[in-house]
Amino acid sequence: MPLENFKRYIQHHTQLSDTHFNELTRNIRVEVVKKHTRLLNQGEVCRFSFFVSKGLLRLYTLDQQGKEFVIQFAPEDWIVGDRSSAYFNQASDYFIDCIEDSEIVFIDKQLIDKASDIDKNFRTYFDTLLHNHIRHIQKRISFLLCATAEQRYMEFVNLYPDLMLRAPQWMIASYLGITPESLSRVRKELAKKHFKL
Amino acid sequence: MPLENFKRYIQHHTQLSDTHFNELTRNIRVEVVKKHTRLLNQGEVCRFSFFVSKGLLRLYTLDQQGKEFVIQFAPEDWIVGDRSSAYFNQASDYFIDCIEDSEIVFIDKQLIDKASDIDKNFRTYFDTLLHNHIRHIQKRISFLLCATAEQRYMEFVNLYPDLMLRAPQWMIASYLGITPESLSRVRKELAKKHFKL
Repeated sequence: MPLENFKRYIQHHTQLSDTHFNELTRNIRVEVVKKHTRLLNQGEVCRFSFFVSKGLLRLYTLDQQGKEFVIQFAPEDWIVGDRSSAYFNQASDYFIDCIEDSEIVFIDKQLIDKASDIDKNFRTYFDTLLHNHIRHIQKRISFLLCATAEQRYMEFVNLYPDLMLRAPQWMIASYLGITPESLSRVRKELAKKHFKL
Repeated sequence: MPLENFKRYIQHHTQLSDTHFNELTRNIRVEVVKKHTRLLNQGEVCRFSFFVSKGLLRLYTLDQQGKEFVIQFAPEDWIVGDRSSAYFNQASDYFIDCIEDSEIVFIDKQLIDKASDIDKNFRTYFDTLLHNHIRHIQKRISFLLCATAEQRYMEFVNLYPDLMLRAPQWMIASYLGITPESLSRVRKELAKKHFKL
């Protein structure tokens, strides 16, 4: 049942009936994709948001030297995309690719419009998602500006409880805006503190 | 005419007639506020977005040591607020105060609903504003993660052409996530380059 997780997710957040869910997703695009598959290239318009039913994606960008910087991770039940590229129909600054073999539900404007036609609460739900996204990225700016490496790490563990074991350490360090050496130091210090408690 | 700038701004972005503008703003709150006035306190729910007709505001937060970090500046024709606090009716993590004596138009949910009743295009316009905001803060994350001090500074000058002369240097350094010493060095280096050209 490739849509089982998406159905559980949608029905958790809205009151969509089984019948309406089936109607909504009759022609929906679902893909099983291999690790390293690229879902969005920098310079393309981002036409989809990707719901992760299984696996792990990341949204990242490159600096002028070609170094990668992770903006967002998206494990199961997360939705990732470049909303402003989609909204303004402009080339994206970002890449999205798969860190693990993944199962992805493709969400586009037509699907959202259809969902809103079926159930008026959907528009509110997507508004909530949008504001959640804003809250999340605002918080990320505050953390990048003023949190210590340890605080950033704790916030990361809180937000993505199992990613420390799933994502490469250099990617996590890149997300946190610290060096892999700092990340390793922070983890050791926290382990020591924890041991003392 | 305290609403002149707001009117020009609104009519630039929407097709609102003079009559409709007058109807919309009949009971609107406009305040002339002194430098250092606090418009939002951390811990309060942010009930308004603030349109700056004159002057300069900033949105900032504090770290655990009480050090200030500027998230956003808002000179004339900018709108600043904490959208997620307003939307979720939750305590804000931010402060907003005036860097200069300012004239502020208070925008709340009622005003936006009224505007959308008067002119359907308004909902689209506010959607555009929201996505512009997302684009802006996403770009800020990329810059904080991967841009050099010089790149951050150039982006700042591009975004806020006259703020270098209006805001204190330590505030600008705080916005850029660099030390005041780095800011001073970057400015000197750029001046040198410019002189050579």
